[in-house]
Amino acid sequence: MTLRINTLAIIGVGLIGGSLSLALKKHSAVGRVIGVGRSQLNLDEALYLGVIDAVATLEEAAKADIIFVATPVAQMPRVFAELAPHLGAHSIITDGGSTKQDVSAAARAAFGKKFPQFVPAHPIAGTEKTGASAAFATLFEKRKTVICAEAETSPEAIELVTQMWQTAGAEIHRMSAVEHDDVFAAVSHLPHLLAFALVDMLAGMPRSADYFNYAASGFRDFTRIAAGSPEMWRDISVANRAALREQLTAYRAQLGEFDRWLASADPDAINAIESSYRRASTARNAWQKYIEYGEPMPPLGGVTRDG
Amino acid sequence: MTLRINTLAIIGVGLIGGSLSLALKKHSAVGRVIGVGRSQLNLDEALYLGVIDAVATLEEAAKADIIFVATPVAQMPRVFAELAPHLGAHSIITDGGSTKQDVSAAARAAFGKKFPQFVPAHPIAGTEKTGASAAFATLFEKRKTVICAEAETSPEAIELVTQMWQTAGAEIHRMSAVEHDDVFAAVSHLPHLLAFALVDMLAGMPRSADYFNYAASGFRDFTRIAAGSPEMWRDISVANRAALREQLTAYRAQLGEFDRWLASADPDAINAIESSYRRASTARNAWQKYIEYGEPMPPLGGVTRDG
Repeated sequence: MTLRINTLAIIGVGLIGGSLSLALKKHSAVGRVIGVGRSQLNLDEALYLGVIDAVATLEEAAKADIIFVATPVAQMPRVFAELAPHLGAHSIITDGGSTKQDVSAAARAAFGKKFPQFVPAHPIAGTEKTGASAAFATLFEKRKTVICAEAETSPEAIELVTQMWQTAGAEIHRMSAVEHDDVFAAVSHLPHLLAFALVDMLAGMPRSADYFNYAASGFRDFTRIAAGSPEMWRDISVANRAALREQLTAYRAQLGEFDRWLASADPDAINAIESSYRRASTARNAWQKYIEYGEPMPPLGGVTRDG
Repeated sequence: MTLRINTLAIIGVGLIGGSLSLALKKHSAVGRVIGVGRSQLNLDEALYLGVIDAVATLEEAAKADIIFVATPVAQMPRVFAELAPHLGAHSIITDGGSTKQDVSAAARAAFGKKFPQFVPAHPIAGTEKTGASAAFATLFEKRKTVICAEAETSPEAIELVTQMWQTAGAEIHRMSAVEHDDVFAAVSHLPHLLAFALVDMLAGMPRSADYFNYAASGFRDFTRIAAGSPEMWRDISVANRAALREQLTAYRAQLGEFDRWLASADPDAINAIESSYRRASTARNAWQKYIEYGEPMPPLGGVTRDG
């Protein structure tokens, strides 16, 4: 079965929204793409580059076959509220937000009886660039898209959104919004917070010039994510703050352990430091083989935990 | 003036020691390189690859013109103690350790009156590979080598070690051992501890399989340094624990602030999160231009600190 969407509306024609449009156009899976955005300059670029076929209002977009909301998560409640009164009876709406419990709650509040038409989703892809001009058709190929359907979500809507992302090249994974937010707090939101916090701390210290002068490739990789958008990461941190604080609390406890081990530096403490580093190194090397060669992750249970 | 070392002894013929030998050979700055090591297999490889010209004992090495101790820092006290009674009157000894206060203290204790012959140094270079077979002649080109001379260190010895590293292509920087250990605690030792701690924490959680399954490129870069050698980083963490704990304490306080901001999530708190992320992002982007294009780092004082 080949997917064919007559009209796709993209709300927020940036890297994510624009790339989905280009991917579906590449596979002839869409008739017409209309775009909604706040920056006329960006919309003009999107038109010029063929990322969208026309500019539309939210009211017009609400009648499309599929409406993809790809704005920052903090704007979604307002976008949903403006779309809701005009939403077509057969329109399907989905999103690309990095957090899912808050987005689902906002959609539920805005759409009411039409909430089953909404499919919460999160394509796990991105680059450091933004805007329609950064979009490219293969962004989602072999990447994961997570769909966090709610109990009310229409099975037909889920199926269509699944097909849409598969057409764009993505692998579909399903989990609850709670599970999603926990996973991404752990592997994305917390690392971003940690990198931002470290760079800000060092930049504010009296010897910051020396620090940045001698920082080398390890620091470069560790802090690369601290170059990200402050607004976007503020929104994500706040939107997912319950799950993020849970991971942050566990991490602060872990650092407290390290501080105690370093303070004592007796043989047991030194052994505990080495054991933690060894488990981490073993896990990280196994994960590298997983992402590079597709080797399965080992269970990680064989490593003794004596910390 | 062209540098010419008759005999160079390398204690620990790994990536760092081997690469220095190859760099000096490439520039015809050394007559004969002798190597000391614990692994016969590694020494055989070093001989086969021409990284060293002969295998030697510590007693023989102690008579060389320059003795470069490139073992892990935890082994240096023992190496110094074994070299000391045999150290040639005109031999110069230097090291490549990642921490400097502890190495200097060990050298002072071992060498006594001969301590002025010891030049504490730290070449800032490396790859993820180890052993003589990983060595290459250009490892130090355009990289920094920090010399942390003590009050007693012989100016002639400093000059010779400076020339040696310059011949290998390195830029020489000078600072005190205290300054050195603070700088590298901040930009290297703390980031390593943080990356190891995060990966170990996530690997030990009930949902670790999901975490590693959905982790993406941001996580990959952030945790790359957690693949490093557990023994080496244990040794560095313990050797530099005073400076490391100071940075860790500041960082834990910073994370405490973030936890309070996330708990409150009132407009002031959200603004504080964004401000911190923005300062970090601004500093990180400026630093990227510094390392990529050599642009000077801005003073970073113009960014308001309201956190």
